[in-house]
Amino acid sequence: MNEMYTNRHWVLAERPAGEPDLDCFELTETETHEPTEGEILVETRYLSVDPYMRGRMSEQESYAEPWAVGDPLNGGIVGEVVATESDAYDTGDLVTGEGLWAEYSCLDADDVAPVDPSVAPPEAYLGVLGMPGRTAYFGLLEVGDPSPGETVVVSGAAGAVGSVVGQIAKLNGCHVVGFAGSDEKTTWLTDDLGFDAAINYKSVDDYQAALADAAPGGVDVYYDNVGGPITDAVFTQLNLDATVAVCGQIAYYNAESMPTGPRKLPQLITKRATVEGLLVGDFSNRFGVATEQLSEWVADGTLQHRETVVEGLSNAPEAFLGLFAGDNIGKQVVRVTEES
Amino acid sequence: MNEMYTNRHWVLAERPAGEPDLDCFELTETETHEPTEGEILVETRYLSVDPYMRGRMSEQESYAEPWAVGDPLNGGIVGEVVATESDAYDTGDLVTGEGLWAEYSCLDADDVAPVDPSVAPPEAYLGVLGMPGRTAYFGLLEVGDPSPGETVVVSGAAGAVGSVVGQIAKLNGCHVVGFAGSDEKTTWLTDDLGFDAAINYKSVDDYQAALADAAPGGVDVYYDNVGGPITDAVFTQLNLDATVAVCGQIAYYNAESMPTGPRKLPQLITKRATVEGLLVGDFSNRFGVATEQLSEWVADGTLQHRETVVEGLSNAPEAFLGLFAGDNIGKQVVRVTEES
Repeated sequence: MNEMYTNRHWVLAERPAGEPDLDCFELTETETHEPTEGEILVETRYLSVDPYMRGRMSEQESYAEPWAVGDPLNGGIVGEVVATESDAYDTGDLVTGEGLWAEYSCLDADDVAPVDPSVAPPEAYLGVLGMPGRTAYFGLLEVGDPSPGETVVVSGAAGAVGSVVGQIAKLNGCHVVGFAGSDEKTTWLTDDLGFDAAINYKSVDDYQAALADAAPGGVDVYYDNVGGPITDAVFTQLNLDATVAVCGQIAYYNAESMPTGPRKLPQLITKRATVEGLLVGDFSNRFGVATEQLSEWVADGTLQHRETVVEGLSNAPEAFLGLFAGDNIGKQVVRVTEES
Repeated sequence: MNEMYTNRHWVLAERPAGEPDLDCFELTETETHEPTEGEILVETRYLSVDPYMRGRMSEQESYAEPWAVGDPLNGGIVGEVVATESDAYDTGDLVTGEGLWAEYSCLDADDVAPVDPSVAPPEAYLGVLGMPGRTAYFGLLEVGDPSPGETVVVSGAAGAVGSVVGQIAKLNGCHVVGFAGSDEKTTWLTDDLGFDAAINYKSVDDYQAALADAAPGGVDVYYDNVGGPITDAVFTQLNLDATVAVCGQIAYYNAESMPTGPRKLPQLITKRATVEGLLVGDFSNRFGVATEQLSEWVADGTLQHRETVVEGLSNAPEAFLGLFAGDNIGKQVVRVTEES
C-alpha cells in the first residue's frame, strides 16, 4: 500500500503522583509506517482501558512494563484491517490484539486474532471474549477452583472480570455473592446475571454483617478485584480451607505508597486458607480453550455481557479515569471513529 | 493404686485484655482422680508453654478451643508414669502428651507417646521432637516446599519452630536467612545451626534493606511465625511464584482487636505468590513419619536443638509471658519438681 495515514495517538505526558488526571495524557499526531512483510495496518474501532494500566503509568517495575514518559500508550484494541502484507488477513477483516491508543496500529499478523461479529459485537472481544474474560475463566477455575455448592464471593463484581467470574461460578453450581458500587450494578448482577446476592458497598456501612447475611454458610472462594475494606470484611468470613484468588487491587492503584500490611494473616492460620495472586498471562498456552468456551457461552446466551462505551479517541483518558470512579458497568471501552 | 495425690494446678483466673499478666493465672490445689481402666497417672517433669496458648485465653473461637475462666490450663507435658491401669506403660516410664499445667495428669494411655531419653533429653520431646518440630517439618516441607538452591526466610528463627525450619531448609540445600531478636540468637543461628545469615531485627532499622543484603536473590519461601513489620518487609522481596507459609503471627496475639488489612496483596499479583495458613494438626495422620525422621536427625547430631528452662511449676505463667518478650532461645519449657 502506498497511502499514508495521519495517526493521532495518545502518549504518557507525565507520571501521576497518586490519582492520575488529564495532565498525564497528551494527544499527538504522527504518520503511521506502512505494513511490511507479515504486518497489517489496523484502523481502531474500539480500544480497551483497564485498571492494570495504572501500574504502567508508574516508574516502579510491576508485571506490566512501565510506560516511559513520551511513550505512546497501548492496550487491547479491535479494529479493521485497512492494509495488509500478510496472507492471513484481507482488508475489511476485523481483528483484535495489542495496539495503540490511536486511530491506526501497524501490527504483526501473528499477534492478532480474528473477530467474529456473528458471535458477539466487536467490542465484546475486549471484554468477555478478551483479556478480562480469560482472566475470569482461569482465575476462577484454576486458582479459585470452587466446587458445586460452595460459596463464591467476588469484588468488583459488575466489572469486566467480576461479572464473568460470577456467572461462571453460577454455571458451576455455586452460591454467588458480588460486591458492587451502585444499585444499578447490583440489580444487574442479581436480575440479569443470576447472582444469588449482591451488596452495594456504597450504601452499606457494615460489610461484614452484609456478607454474613448474603453468605450465611461462610466464604469458600473469594475472587478479589479490589482489596481494601471489602477484602478485610471477606477475610473475616472465610471458611476452613478457603481460597482467595487475588486478581486485582484497584483500591491501592492510586496510593502514593504501598500500604503496610499484610494484617489479617492470623485468620489464614485459623482457616488454613490460601491466598494466591494470579496473572492471566501465565495461562497463555491455554488461551484458545478459554476463548472457545467463552465464545460458545456467549453465542448461545449462557453468558451475559455488557460494555460501557465512551465515544471518541479524544475521550480515552476520561474513560480510563472513570474506571477508578466505578463509572463502568461491565467492560469499559472507547469507540474510535473517524470524526472522534 | 490406692494412694491419693494432692495436685497443684494452674487455672485461668481471668481473660486478658491485650497483653496478659500474672493476674490471669491462679495456682489452685485439688486431689487427682485415680487412673481407671486404660489410664495412667503421670507426674509432670516438664510442661510446655507456647504462643498459641494466648489464643485459648481469649473468648473468640479460633483453631484451639478457648479456655473457660476457672478451667485448668493444659498443654504439652513430659512426665513419669507413677500409677498405671494400662498394659502399655509401667510405672517409671517417661511419656509425652497433652496434660495439665500441674504436678499430675491422669491421661488415657492411648493419647500419650513414649519418651526415649537415649535419643534426646526429655524436654526435647516438647520442642524439636514434639509439636514445634512437627510443625516445622510439615510446614516447611509440605506448605513452603522449597527446592534446593532456593532462598528460605524464617521469622521467629530462634524459636522452637523457626530454629528447626531453618535447619531442615539447610538440609534441603537452601539459602537460609533468619530474623531473630538478639545478637545471642543470631549468633546461634549462623554459628551453630548453619543459617547463611541472620538479622537481629532489634538492632536493624531497615528490615527491607537488611533482607535485600542477606537474600540478594530474593525470597522463594517465607516461613512466617511473627507477622507485623518483618513480614511487611519480606513481602517486598518475594520472588516470582514465591510461597508464604503462615505458621504464627505472634505480633498480633496480644492485640486488643484484629488489625485491619490485608494490605500487601498487590505484590501477590505481581509475583503470583501464594500465602497459606497452616496448622500442624492437619498432618496428624503422618506425625509418625515426622517424629521418626526428626528423632534420627537429633540422635545423629544432624539437627541441633536448644531448650530454655524455667524452674518450677509456680513460675509457669512467667515462662509463658516471656514468650512475648522473646526471652526464650529454642523451646521454652518449665521444669516441674516436687519442691517447685
